[in-house]
Amino acid sequence: MRGIEVLGVEGFPEVRTDDDINRMISGAVATDLRPRDVLVVTHKIVSKAEGRLVDLRTVEPSTLAKGYAARYGKDPRQIEVVLRESRRIVRMDRGIVITETHHGFVCANAGVDASNVPGDDTVCLLPVDPDASAARLRDALAEDPGVEVAVVISDSFGRAWRHGITDVAIGVAGMDPVADYRGQPDPHGYPMEASVLAVADELAAAAELVMGKTDGIPLAIVRGYAYSSAPGSATELLMPPDRDMFR
Amino acid sequence: MRGIEVLGVEGFPEVRTDDDINRMISGAVATDLRPRDVLVVTHKIVSKAEGRLVDLRTVEPSTLAKGYAARYGKDPRQIEVVLRESRRIVRMDRGIVITETHHGFVCANAGVDASNVPGDDTVCLLPVDPDASAARLRDALAEDPGVEVAVVISDSFGRAWRHGITDVAIGVAGMDPVADYRGQPDPHGYPMEASVLAVADELAAAAELVMGKTDGIPLAIVRGYAYSSAPGSATELLMPPDRDMFR
Repeated sequence: MRGIEVLGVEGFPEVRTDDDINRMISGAVATDLRPRDVLVVTHKIVSKAEGRLVDLRTVEPSTLAKGYAARYGKDPRQIEVVLRESRRIVRMDRGIVITETHHGFVCANAGVDASNVPGDDTVCLLPVDPDASAARLRDALAEDPGVEVAVVISDSFGRAWRHGITDVAIGVAGMDPVADYRGQPDPHGYPMEASVLAVADELAAAAELVMGKTDGIPLAIVRGYAYSSAPGSATELLMPPDRDMFR
Repeated sequence: MRGIEVLGVEGFPEVRTDDDINRMISGAVATDLRPRDVLVVTHKIVSKAEGRLVDLRTVEPSTLAKGYAARYGKDPRQIEVVLRESRRIVRMDRGIVITETHHGFVCANAGVDASNVPGDDTVCLLPVDPDASAARLRDALAEDPGVEVAVVISDSFGRAWRHGITDVAIGVAGMDPVADYRGQPDPHGYPMEASVLAVADELAAAAELVMGKTDGIPLAIVRGYAYSSAPGSATELLMPPDRDMFR
């Protein structure tokens, strides 16, 4: 049987601001990584190393943030951070804020998260440029241990219409994040209509299955998946505004 | 490293209406299946066996279907089938029809699909009750080859805001389709806020990576994932209407 393996990397140390995250990851995977693996990295450790933490005690909430937080029993400082990380509000109701981030991702709370962060008053933001973070990591791994891989940086997003979150790709380097089968014949010889597969999202989802949420496993190696080599960017996974029916 | 394997089952025969699909699957996986595997089955083979095929030459399009199809250069008979498979239209614009199926799934074209189906004038519907199909398959496998597994029936759905489709679970048997971490402490001891993971969807996505779209691999075995045993139902993956901000 043809297959893939998804391997969780255990024992990764706690990450602090200004840690050399690429060296830490390289050290953790050096003996295990093989050419053409996909290394999936949860964004939290990248964000922490890049100092994307906000001490809420330093945040002065806007009038909008204060009003919305008061209405739904939320922390106005956290709402303020969400608004600052956003370039457009998609929905704002029932205590929930769904926005388009400065990167173009549409998700709850602009990816601002208080879990897996030390301290009561600290929240974690998404990396400023997750594609660039992925590319730097990929370059570092090509240097040491000297292995060419693809890198996916992941986060857990909710979905419209479906309950529960799944991990998706917010940064990509070294692979085509989609597999485009449009026009190729199906096994019956008919051209396929709408088959662009978001494989980087599926790789992130597969990696989540070995990471869990409470196990402190921020890295997974996917082995055996025949991705298309390409520079790659998670922006290829964004719905173009003119095709977005749920703005 | 702790990990999972995702194994594609090759060489599965073409399925026709009234084939004994459970026996066919049992035969294909009998020597490979182990206790606590998750068997992911693409819905297409289940639908075909259950006779969920429509010959478009027998379909009389409604006025709505004719008008919409004419405006966007679509087949009015196929639009009519989509409307019949729906209990609510979510969006209908630009030639696209996004509906809520009779099962409660929100997806493009109510899951009606012309690819991987023999014949120019045939389309394939979703199974009538994918949970029941999954449960029957699970029971059949517990009988012969006598292995207790979980079963996920999958389909490829588009997503709001993101380009590309990913596989999700439309039928579940033998496992809890979500992993609910709410209230559990994160590695820093703080309770997690919004962590209900849609693990059945992640399993379907992982399986898609070995199935591909053109390879004719309709089955995958996921090994090593520690699911919670439960009767399970894909309806647990539906957003309750009162929490759905994108109806």
